[in-house]
Amino acid sequence: MKILIINGPNLNLVGTREPDIYGTRTFDDYLVDLRKRFPDADIEHLQSNVEGEIIDALQSADCPVILNAGGYTHTSVAIRDAVAAIGQPVVEVHISSLAGREPFRHTSLLAPVCRGSIMGFGLESYRIAILSII
Amino acid sequence: MKILIINGPNLNLVGTREPDIYGTRTFDDYLVDLRKRFPDADIEHLQSNVEGEIIDALQSADCPVILNAGGYTHTSVAIRDAVAAIGQPVVEVHISSLAGREPFRHTSLLAPVCRGSIMGFGLESYRIAILSII
Amino acid sequence: MKILIINGPNLNLVGTREPDIYGTRTFDDYLVDLRKRFPDADIEHLQSNVEGEIIDALQSADCPVILNAGGYTHTSVAIRDAVAAIGQPVVEVHISSLAGREPFRHTSLLAPVCRGSIMGFGLESYRIAILSII
Amino acid sequence: MKILIINGPNLNLVGTREPDIYGTRTFDDYLVDLRKRFPDADIEHLQSNVEGEIIDALQSADCPVILNAGGYTHTSVAIRDAVAAIGQPVVEVHISSLAGREPFRHTSLLAPVCRGSIMGFGLESYRIAILSII
Amino acid sequence: MKILIINGPNLNLVGTREPDIYGTRTFDDYLVDLRKRFPDADIEHLQSNVEGEIIDALQSADCPVILNAGGYTHTSVAIRDAVAAIGQPVVEVHISSLAGREPFRHTSLLAPVCRGSIMGFGLESYRIAILSII
Amino acid sequence: MKILIINGPNLNLVGTREPDIYGTRTFDDYLVDLRKRFPDADIEHLQSNVEGEIIDALQSADCPVILNAGGYTHTSVAIRDAVAAIGQPVVEVHISSLAGREPFRHTSLLAPVCRGSIMGFGLESYRIAILSII
Amino acid sequence: MKILIINGPNLNLVGTREPDIYGTRTFDDYLVDLRKRFPDADIEHLQSNVEGEIIDALQSADCPVILNAGGYTHTSVAIRDAVAAIGQPVVEVHISSLAGREPFRHTSLLAPVCRGSIMGFGLESYRIAILSII
Amino acid sequence: MKILIINGPNLNLVGTREPDIYGTRTFDDYLVDLRKRFPDADIEHLQSNVEGEIIDALQSADCPVILNAGGYTHTSVAIRDAVAAIGQPVVEVHISSLAGREPFRHTSLLAPVCRGSIMGFGLESYRIAILSII
Amino acid sequence: MKILIINGPNLNLVGTREPDIYGTRTFDDYLVDLRKRFPDADIEHLQSNVEGEIIDALQSADCPVILNAGGYTHTSVAIRDAVAAIGQPVVEVHISSLAGREPFRHTSLLAPVCRGSIMGFGLESYRIAILSII
Amino acid sequence: MKILIINGPNLNLVGTREPDIYGTRTFDDYLVDLRKRFPDADIEHLQSNVEGEIIDALQSADCPVILNAGGYTHTSVAIRDAVAAIGQPVVEVHISSLAGREPFRHTSLLAPVCRGSIMGFGLESYRIAILSII
Amino acid sequence: MKILIINGPNLNLVGTREPDIYGTRTFDDYLVDLRKRFPDADIEHLQSNVEGEIIDALQSADCPVILNAGGYTHTSVAIRDAVAAIGQPVVEVHISSLAGREPFRHTSLLAPVCRGSIMGFGLESYRIAILSII
Amino acid sequence: MKILIINGPNLNLVGTREPDIYGTRTFDDYLVDLRKRFPDADIEHLQSNVEGEIIDALQSADCPVILNAGGYTHTSVAIRDAVAAIGQPVVEVHISSLAGREPFRHTSLLAPVCRGSIMGFGLESYRIAILSII
Repeated sequence: MKILIINGPNLNLVGTREPDIYGTRTFDDYLVDLRKRFPDADIEHLQSNVEGEIIDALQSADCPVILNAGGYTHTSVAIRDAVAAIGQPVVEVHISSLAGREPFRHTSLLAPVCRGSIMGFGLESYRIAILSII
Repeated sequence: MKILIINGPNLNLVGTREPDIYGTRTFDDYLVDLRKRFPDADIEHLQSNVEGEIIDALQSADCPVILNAGGYTHTSVAIRDAVAAIGQPVVEVHISSLAGREPFRHTSLLAPVCRGSIMGFGLESYRIAILSII
Repeated sequence: MKILIINGPNLNLVGTREPDIYGTRTFDDYLVDLRKRFPDADIEHLQSNVEGEIIDALQSADCPVILNAGGYTHTSVAIRDAVAAIGQPVVEVHISSLAGREPFRHTSLLAPVCRGSIMGFGLESYRIAILSII
Repeated sequence: MKILIINGPNLNLVGTREPDIYGTRTFDDYLVDLRKRFPDADIEHLQSNVEGEIIDALQSADCPVILNAGGYTHTSVAIRDAVAAIGQPVVEVHISSLAGREPFRHTSLLAPVCRGSIMGFGLESYRIAILSII
Repeated sequence: MKILIINGPNLNLVGTREPDIYGTRTFDDYLVDLRKRFPDADIEHLQSNVEGEIIDALQSADCPVILNAGGYTHTSVAIRDAVAAIGQPVVEVHISSLAGREPFRHTSLLAPVCRGSIMGFGLESYRIAILSII
Repeated sequence: MKILIINGPNLNLVGTREPDIYGTRTFDDYLVDLRKRFPDADIEHLQSNVEGEIIDALQSADCPVILNAGGYTHTSVAIRDAVAAIGQPVVEVHISSLAGREPFRHTSLLAPVCRGSIMGFGLESYRIAILSII
Repeated sequence: MKILIINGPNLNLVGTREPDIYGTRTFDDYLVDLRKRFPDADIEHLQSNVEGEIIDALQSADCPVILNAGGYTHTSVAIRDAVAAIGQPVVEVHISSLAGREPFRHTSLLAPVCRGSIMGFGLESYRIAILSII
Repeated sequence: MKILIINGPNLNLVGTREPDIYGTRTFDDYLVDLRKRFPDADIEHLQSNVEGEIIDALQSADCPVILNAGGYTHTSVAIRDAVAAIGQPVVEVHISSLAGREPFRHTSLLAPVCRGSIMGFGLESYRIAILSII
Repeated sequence: MKILIINGPNLNLVGTREPDIYGTRTFDDYLVDLRKRFPDADIEHLQSNVEGEIIDALQSADCPVILNAGGYTHTSVAIRDAVAAIGQPVVEVHISSLAGREPFRHTSLLAPVCRGSIMGFGLESYRIAILSII
Repeated sequence: MKILIINGPNLNLVGTREPDIYGTRTFDDYLVDLRKRFPDADIEHLQSNVEGEIIDALQSADCPVILNAGGYTHTSVAIRDAVAAIGQPVVEVHISSLAGREPFRHTSLLAPVCRGSIMGFGLESYRIAILSII
Repeated sequence: MKILIINGPNLNLVGTREPDIYGTRTFDDYLVDLRKRFPDADIEHLQSNVEGEIIDALQSADCPVILNAGGYTHTSVAIRDAVAAIGQPVVEVHISSLAGREPFRHTSLLAPVCRGSIMGFGLESYRIAILSII
Repeated sequence: MKILIINGPNLNLVGTREPDIYGTRTFDDYLVDLRKRFPDADIEHLQSNVEGEIIDALQSADCPVILNAGGYTHTSVAIRDAVAAIGQPVVEVHISSLAGREPFRHTSLLAPVCRGSIMGFGLESYRIAILSII
């Protein structure tokens, strides 16, 4: 089974960026573990800081998608439209609980068009998202 | 391992109520399956339509809690305070994706004080919540 | 024909409470008259100050309901969900005209899911509601 | 007993306009029935698309008024002032439940100055309004 | 010198309508006095409940205008456009002080395009307006 | 082919009114040209300052309508209801770009029920609207 | 002299819950002291997590009331109505200063109908409230 | 007859400050004329940039007051309270039309407690205000 | 023990100003009583209508302060900053209950930085404030 | 004559994406027809999901532009700035009527700086836009 | 070259007040250094807690002004008017970054009329402001 | 000393774009001067219209950054997150004063996470920013 994880802007800095919010483990390091825990799954990973590249990736996805759009979650009508347009199910993931942070992070433009949302479990949010798909 | 599921108002009607949103399976029926899938977990279940009884249940919880507060999710400062006051981790669960429904359902007063939130996966949201705890 | 009148919080004080808004006649006294005017109707009456008990009553109703949810009209998503979930028609009633009072009383969460709304006719609003059903 | 029904803009199209909201029966057809049901009442009827003509009609009313101001319900301070200025009681009527439609229909400028409001019962709202007066 | 007074909806009821706000003197009675006080002025008067007729009157005005648009003051972009479009100076007048009444009366769409505004002096506001012109 | 152009309040002043916004050409003058450019079309024209007369005209239209409701665009629920109620397609037209003017002109109540909207091209907006129909 | 202290949801957890906001002393422990300081007063105490039970208690109060409605302070129109309906004076009390906490705690629905409000003095707010009564 | 003109902050700069809004004539120069036109009136004048001094002046006024509070018009609850507290009638005056300027100038905290308001006539607003008093 | 009472704008008029809100007793008269009731306390009193003088007084306070900032309560970031900046505890006092008055009085900029707030007890609010300090 | 059509994010999916909103015809297919209908026009076409690439394209445009910025219409100050900065006229186009969709699509940041706007005619909006230019 | 630094309310407490925001160095101490660094500049300094005195100082300035209006930045239309009225350039300075503090500090009424704004550099903001002038 | 200037969308057009706001000098021309004035500084410069490329540049910065994010200043949570995530100090710069332009430019998402902000000095804002760093 194939799963595509798309990480949006600044998620390449997880592990170094604001560790009180995002923890101290890098995503690449976590990804190794993730693949070990799901040996039967083919987990692809793409990170981009460019809104349009995330849209490109969504448009060409041929498997379920786990999407953490980072800061674009709150501002991108364009990514929302891409999620709504494609045939693949998309699960929204966030490392921290958005509702407990700044007001401009409280609204997700993506949630209404995603299959489901998982947030607040740290990096383990990704593991839970995989479990929601398989 | 013990887990307490607290279901709020009208969730006793799942399976008969608005099936296009909540599906046609009753929670009791689903609970049988859930216990089979997690034979090592001691899954307790409590449903109440009374806001104060949900607070009572949270206050006396001695294990992790999976909480679907239903309509109180959006209006109850009192349940929020209970979640913040107790020592047990609480995972917020919703059957449907709140962001895709009426505006008064978009805000969760509970999310900022819960350990994490899972929504939109139908009844399977409960299964995923258990996986997030164990 | 059976009709269930559900009165919410503080409506047991009608006749003594703020008489310039609610008049000086008690609901129990009015109910005697109401039953006389509709001798063929079986008019049941339930009053509760507890939001969850109102939901319980709605869930177990087996006849059309006349609902004056009092202060919960403006705050209770949970009662709204109960009205939407049950099969019985519910007519919303208010003694005074909500639009002419404080701003927080202007919005009814219940109106969109009720069959109809009647307000502003004093206690006679109940009589008119019965006429709307039979 | 004399009663004046004032219907505002586009209510002359009831029965042909948006039948899922307003039904398929014309008001004129309904009015015949209404007069039969209340043989002792002298029911006059006036429909106008012009805001000022509705004000003129209110100002010259010499009996209780049943008013469905249609789209002017939400925008007309001038009709509100007319209702408040005249000595006759005015009952507000709407065919559909305003609270369940677009947000700009949720606020009635007229309700605070009317004797009472009845909405959501289809054309039968008019019958109920007559019952509230006699 | 010619001056046109345009009175909007319900101002024909001044003297009978809500006397605590508008006083007990009719406008026609007051107009007699007004003409006596300004014997050299040719004071014309027009009252209409119809928004479009007020626009017609503004468009055909050939002298300075004193405008009390009544309830249309707060809602009519169309009258505002007429005031802005014509070449004659328009002085806005109100009998009561709008700022001390309901919130929907606090905003005047007309004030920004009028030459000046006078309000709160009762019927004497008209006298003051004439003094502002001559 | 028959086309009805309905112009709302103050559009009879185009060419003289605020020429920096509306230009210096009168509509009647433009209409002559318009008819020359579309010799096969039967272009009728109606201008009214009265909201209710515009509703009347919409209700009796027997051909596609080009509607510039002027100031009523932003305030008239009643005209919106008329557009939604009739069977003829209605194209919304504005001479200037509403979004670049005062905030109260930014919202069109009519756009959601029109077939399409064309604005900002000066008087040529009407020509483009005709092209959108034929 | 008799005084009734009504404590709302989660106030039974004071002393253990969020000690940086509420301190480390339990209310029961504090109550012993309070009774010692006012030996002539008959201080009754009731705590409930159920909104409706607080309303019941207010309705049956036969002495001045000190009310800390906890999270219901900000959301309960029904408790507000009860305070306004009964004859006894009610003093609003809060342990912390609401204005310094989350925005949804800034508005008290109860303050306008209470005799007075005291907040921010920790548990000593109760002592001061008693002093305001006797 | 005695009249006190109170001018608030920056009105001492009229004639030099933003001449497109306030004109090029100084207030002192205008005051000479004003006194000539009303030889029987004892017109006192006080200008201050200090909010509290304006309150002091209002409190010690022993005659009708013409008040142009300048920038404090929109922000000073304290001056409003002073106007409401004193026994003398206060007429609000503004040189320009507030409604046509920045949004923060649209609301006058003073208008609801003044006897009347006059604005937009340039310096002549003061003359008209005197005419409204005598 | 020394206590400084700072009274803001218009509080020198208590006893004469709006007696239905503030009562008929002057503060000076009340102060005599207050000093009698607390013979061991050195109660200083300062009243000023000038925002900056209240800040000056706060900055030079060498004892606990009881502050009724009057109309500045709702508008003065500067007084708030002074309260937060000084080392002395400040207790906020209001004669009436702010929440029951105009909307612009509902928000206190000072409450979040004061030690506590007492309001609604009439002049007795000052006595209660002293009791909260000693 | 040269015309540049710039299509923003997800418009490459037209014909497959949400066919009830966007129809079932692809843009490429439509473009063939469009070029046939305007044989004298040199119609260039560029589609990009990347906000910055759309800005690049606008900056290097050497002919009139037809711009459908898709989801960026509502969020991109940067594209707005590009439209305002370049010398070429830009016509805004949308396939559906924005005003009839979700609230976050109601505001166009681009409209105020475009030459004109055309929306709601399906793919034919592009044809009409070309007609507005030539 | 002469430069006038005007410091508003509570800035005399810098160095003692909330040191985590404002640091521990007094302004007077800093001013000594500042004068040393700009030996050719004649740096005057004025601090006042009184809004009107700041306006007085602005009105009599005969050189460029560096203005830190403290809490008045967010509330004073009157100081804004003074800045706009005088001929001297005014540079706005803040020690901390306003956008990172409480919401009521996010809006500067002064910025739109100042020549430029510098904030967030601690006391060094003043040095940078001087560099922006000379 | 090394300094990186990052310019966002459309800043490559400075000198040609809206000269009344941005002046007539190109940034490249200005940069030559800037380097001359700071011969000891190694001033790098990067301009991009792509939001994600600005994030890339911030992430790889190895020196203090001067950031003018142009239109992204008001909309980009993603750039804000990048500024907060990296270790280098970032100074926010704007050519014009944002507070004096359209409302959607009044809020900077970047200011709270930048070291400081400088705006309104034209191109000289960059020079001042360099002075704030060295």
